[in-house]
Amino acid sequence: MTDAATNMRLKLPITCFILEIILIILFGTLVQYNYETDAAEWHNQTKHSDYENDFYYRYASFQDVHVMIFIGFGFLMTFLQRYGFSSVGFNFLIAAFALQWATLMQGFFHGMHGGKIHIGVESMINADFCTGAVLISFGAVLGKTSPVQLLVMAMFEVTLFAVNEFIVLSAIGAKDAGGSMTIHTFGAYFGLMVTRVLYRPNLDKSKSRNSSVYHSDLFAMIGTLYLWMFWPSFNSAVTAHGDDQHRTAMNTYYSLAACTLSSYAMSALTAHDGKLDMVHIQNAALAGGVAAGTAGEMMLMPFGSMIVGLLAGIISVLGFKYLSPVLEEKLKIQDTCGVNNLHGMPGILGAIVGAVTAAVATMDIYGAGMADVFPDVASGEINASAQGVRQAIALAVTLGISLLGGLIVGFILKLPVFGAPPDSICFEDSIYWEVPGEEPSHDEQLTVVNIEETEKLNI
Amino acid sequence: MTDAATNMRLKLPITCFILEIILIILFGTLVQYNYETDAAEWHNQTKHSDYENDFYYRYASFQDVHVMIFIGFGFLMTFLQRYGFSSVGFNFLIAAFALQWATLMQGFFHGMHGGKIHIGVESMINADFCTGAVLISFGAVLGKTSPVQLLVMAMFEVTLFAVNEFIVLSAIGAKDAGGSMTIHTFGAYFGLMVTRVLYRPNLDKSKSRNSSVYHSDLFAMIGTLYLWMFWPSFNSAVTAHGDDQHRTAMNTYYSLAACTLSSYAMSALTAHDGKLDMVHIQNAALAGGVAAGTAGEMMLMPFGSMIVGLLAGIISVLGFKYLSPVLEEKLKIQDTCGVNNLHGMPGILGAIVGAVTAAVATMDIYGAGMADVFPDVASGEINASAQGVRQAIALAVTLGISLLGGLIVGFILKLPVFGAPPDSICFEDSIYWEVPGEEPSHDEQLTVVNIEETEKLNI
Amino acid sequence: MTDAATNMRLKLPITCFILEIILIILFGTLVQYNYETDAAEWHNQTKHSDYENDFYYRYASFQDVHVMIFIGFGFLMTFLQRYGFSSVGFNFLIAAFALQWATLMQGFFHGMHGGKIHIGVESMINADFCTGAVLISFGAVLGKTSPVQLLVMAMFEVTLFAVNEFIVLSAIGAKDAGGSMTIHTFGAYFGLMVTRVLYRPNLDKSKSRNSSVYHSDLFAMIGTLYLWMFWPSFNSAVTAHGDDQHRTAMNTYYSLAACTLSSYAMSALTAHDGKLDMVHIQNAALAGGVAAGTAGEMMLMPFGSMIVGLLAGIISVLGFKYLSPVLEEKLKIQDTCGVNNLHGMPGILGAIVGAVTAAVATMDIYGAGMADVFPDVASGEINASAQGVRQAIALAVTLGISLLGGLIVGFILKLPVFGAPPDSICFEDSIYWEVPGEEPSHDEQLTVVNIEETEKLNI
Repeated sequence: MTDAATNMRLKLPITCFILEIILIILFGTLVQYNYETDAAEWHNQTKHSDYENDFYYRYASFQDVHVMIFIGFGFLMTFLQRYGFSSVGFNFLIAAFALQWATLMQGFFHGMHGGKIHIGVESMINADFCTGAVLISFGAVLGKTSPVQLLVMAMFEVTLFAVNEFIVLSAIGAKDAGGSMTIHTFGAYFGLMVTRVLYRPNLDKSKSRNSSVYHSDLFAMIGTLYLWMFWPSFNSAVTAHGDDQHRTAMNTYYSLAACTLSSYAMSALTAHDGKLDMVHIQNAALAGGVAAGTAGEMMLMPFGSMIVGLLAGIISVLGFKYLSPVLEEKLKIQDTCGVNNLHGMPGILGAIVGAVTAAVATMDIYGAGMADVFPDVASGEINASAQGVRQAIALAVTLGISLLGGLIVGFILKLPVFGAPPDSICFEDSIYWEVPGEEPSHDEQLTVVNIEETEKLNI
Repeated sequence: MTDAATNMRLKLPITCFILEIILIILFGTLVQYNYETDAAEWHNQTKHSDYENDFYYRYASFQDVHVMIFIGFGFLMTFLQRYGFSSVGFNFLIAAFALQWATLMQGFFHGMHGGKIHIGVESMINADFCTGAVLISFGAVLGKTSPVQLLVMAMFEVTLFAVNEFIVLSAIGAKDAGGSMTIHTFGAYFGLMVTRVLYRPNLDKSKSRNSSVYHSDLFAMIGTLYLWMFWPSFNSAVTAHGDDQHRTAMNTYYSLAACTLSSYAMSALTAHDGKLDMVHIQNAALAGGVAAGTAGEMMLMPFGSMIVGLLAGIISVLGFKYLSPVLEEKLKIQDTCGVNNLHGMPGILGAIVGAVTAAVATMDIYGAGMADVFPDVASGEINASAQGVRQAIALAVTLGISLLGGLIVGFILKLPVFGAPPDSICFEDSIYWEVPGEEPSHDEQLTVVNIEETEKLNI
Repeated sequence: MTDAATNMRLKLPITCFILEIILIILFGTLVQYNYETDAAEWHNQTKHSDYENDFYYRYASFQDVHVMIFIGFGFLMTFLQRYGFSSVGFNFLIAAFALQWATLMQGFFHGMHGGKIHIGVESMINADFCTGAVLISFGAVLGKTSPVQLLVMAMFEVTLFAVNEFIVLSAIGAKDAGGSMTIHTFGAYFGLMVTRVLYRPNLDKSKSRNSSVYHSDLFAMIGTLYLWMFWPSFNSAVTAHGDDQHRTAMNTYYSLAACTLSSYAMSALTAHDGKLDMVHIQNAALAGGVAAGTAGEMMLMPFGSMIVGLLAGIISVLGFKYLSPVLEEKLKIQDTCGVNNLHGMPGILGAIVGAVTAAVATMDIYGAGMADVFPDVASGEINASAQGVRQAIALAVTLGISLLGGLIVGFILKLPVFGAPPDSICFEDSIYWEVPGEEPSHDEQLTVVNIEETEKLNI
């Protein structure tokens, strides 16, 4: 065998083709168009206009979420100086796999109709959501994993995500439209546990590459801004139509704006020389979106959203500055992107805000809209306090499943067959990619001369 | 005191936190969900479908505008070689503040209902619009101001913007859906006056950094193209629903296309060696959107839009080439981004085109649609010529308020407490940011060796 | 004459202004608002709500397509190390021209009403589609043509595109909503024939620049991802409303996801050392969108879409790896971007899949929806097999017209008056652009010193 352990020549194709063929077989057996995408079914019902197809009320949200998944997460992680190809490229690969697998896993739990999974734009959004959790975990292990490891992680994490989502939303009856718990908390603590299990004692050998350069930070800002701009669409993408979707988007908008101001403030305040740190701007300014993920659809009020965003930004910068080094040194958690600070703690904050907001809901405030937001409270089955308790239980369950799941999957990923990079070549594209040089070919002077010569010839 | 004047350690956090706390208090006191975002209000009215919520007819436009504000303006200004972090980062900060402040200021003038400001997707678009004017002014002072100065400028400019907007739209009764006057003319001349007052006689000490490098010009093209692509959404975002919104988007589309051709033509024509200049492509090609900001919703006709765009591109390139140097040398206006050429003169052109198009409006052409575009003409209160006069007055008022406002605010910003950079360190990120190196760590050769060694070990 | 042949000082302005003035005259004479954009017409009809304006059911798709045209195609081609300005900039120029010209050419064939061309959002989408074909051809000649050549090519190609589109869709009655044939196959083989005629025997003199650098590959990924994310909108943009649009978007989503996995798999498999090649990731992963362009609106089923995507990715990588070198050496086809692999062969695959899927359509599967997808089959005029034959004929016609058209236009572009670059200065921005340096001015050390001095002064 002449291949190095990290050579992907056979490992990656075999993994990709096996996974895709399994997907095609399962899709062929189990997946059907739902009544809004099926030609015969849709036209069977004569009492609706084509304009009532949910495509027109969800697809724009879907596209915004889609941009967050592929551009947002992908470019956010390009901040590393020598890992841009892998950040964008592996993000692309595992997202393309995860959204297919999520269609099946979420379908098993949510969408079975007569033994078949029915799909449409709402399942596409949910599949992208589930993919988001995988990409958050990817952030924790960024630079230290092979693409095959990532695909294996995605396969297990999507499955556990669907289980947890089912328990939280269906079994417990909690609300979590923007996924503070199901997406952010789950993805973060799953990833943190995986990176704990995959602890690399000699990672400082790659330390010189575990930082940014000027242009890589600008590329990362593309990711940051797309996440920031479209987060209102993310949180509102699967809420009830009408006031709910409208209100969720607006709450998130104000939460993010306030979070941006507190992130800048805290970044300058915690620097010894008052200089802003790109890590904080790229990440902490987004925590307001995470923290509005549960309560965004509730009657949080604009000023309430702003308070949540303000706190999220503060917590997030403090986490980057003071907590991350402690986690790495004491708990051996090497969290490349600081997902605990962007998704973990703000996700927990969002879950708590959601529980409190739910517990104080009244018919005065919600009116007939209560049925959209808290159907069991509206029907009288439970009171608002009980809904708050449900929300709190959902957080505990999410933390438990994500940590336990990350533990198990971490050990699976430790098997020495997936081609993980050695400690000395982490955060480095060239181990898995053909990498061109940094600089253009140095014939510029020559070129100018050539042009001048050409000009002379043409006089 | 050991801090340098430009140290932001305390200045920026104090400013941000004070502003955000004031915002939260005012929002808590004054701001409410409108009937489309409030659960109880929306469900009170039983005769509508959830699909009639304005969210579905404005939110896609809002998101396009949102991208223009954060990615468009932010990246357009990254053309400077050493100011990318500040361009994108300060754009992000002041926009996040301005949109909150604008919600209040515009709400005072437009949206008070029983002492409360009612907000929804339309107020979000208007807040982003107001933010756009601030970012235009930012372009004039780019590289020469501290973030605290910018926040102070934003606070005053948003307030004056709301006053001017109220006078133009409500008191005078002019039309300006895409903001040729209220946004572009206002933002440009406000900013030009501010930069005039902040004149720096020794700015040539920073001259070497007041230019682009290859990659920074490519980053700037991201901003240019997003502004260009989404300008049809910008101009149509708050017009009346139906034909108005549809027509505005289409007029803007053709104006921009024609403007692009004339910008390329003029860029080659005015270069001594026929080579295209990125400054023109990045900026002048957008002037067609500015110039269609007032008349876009009117029956300008596609060929009329194209003529407007053609002229806008010509004027804009000529401005960059011949007028900007004169303004700098003779009038001491140091306009970093040339906002006079992209927003100022094309804005005035747009206002004039709007006045003329309004003055020639007839019932033959508009039919019952007159009520949407010129309600006072449709109701017979005034005739079309009078509407044209209103438009012209609105331009004059806008110029007056923006110049006077810029004068006053410029002097406020001159107070030596805001941490402005010295003349020798303008256009430089490292004064306010932790800046990493330009190049990846030079262990590439080492890396290759490591990989080869690893491969040998694994044979 | 002191100008070099490649000097654009007069050539480009004259071309641009003549074309734009012709456009304005023809628009003034021939083009009118359609009933959804005309104030009088729209308000004449009293029985509809403003919310029924097609703007609300097509404009979001239009904007996604618009982003693909300007950001997607533009940045996809920035992979070359010294051709970023031209890739994005010429893409911008010829697209802005082509969409205006396409409005007229497509209008002649599709939209004449009483001697006038009626335009609205659907014609805008179609104009952008036609522009897409021109940009595909641009990819084949990238780096080897002057902007004047490209404008001339666009003028002829748009005209032939409209002819072919009319024959395929109207005369033959084939279906091709996403343009596997009319856009991708047409654009690719037209461009390949043009580049064949423009064969440069000494192109290896520019070989050093015909490759990427690290950052240029990251810029190209922006283009790739926007094309990938918005392809569902592209294929569904002009299908019938309701289930058709919904289904097309979803089929494309799954086709692309499967294609991404097979592209990564094949890229690793065909590399001698198992390393992924950015060329494959940037291009082959998109082939699934091309291949779903015809059958996407049909009842292809999700698993069918995934099989199509899987095959498209495989074909595309194999093409880049093994066919492109052969085409260049044996057939003298210098295909800079490999458009045969991304658009040509996957387009043919898409046409074949469309023919087969059409041929097996049954009323059982489509129900009353048959009238949307295959109106002539629904009306009983022909049977499904005949529709399949129509699709096959449409492919043959498209190949014939594109190859013949490319041949003729190639010879026109060979005329030595358009300022094409010499063989030794291909793939080089500086021949047509003012190009700044690669690196920031080297006063960084100085700057740091300056800051320190300033700090001392301020103590």
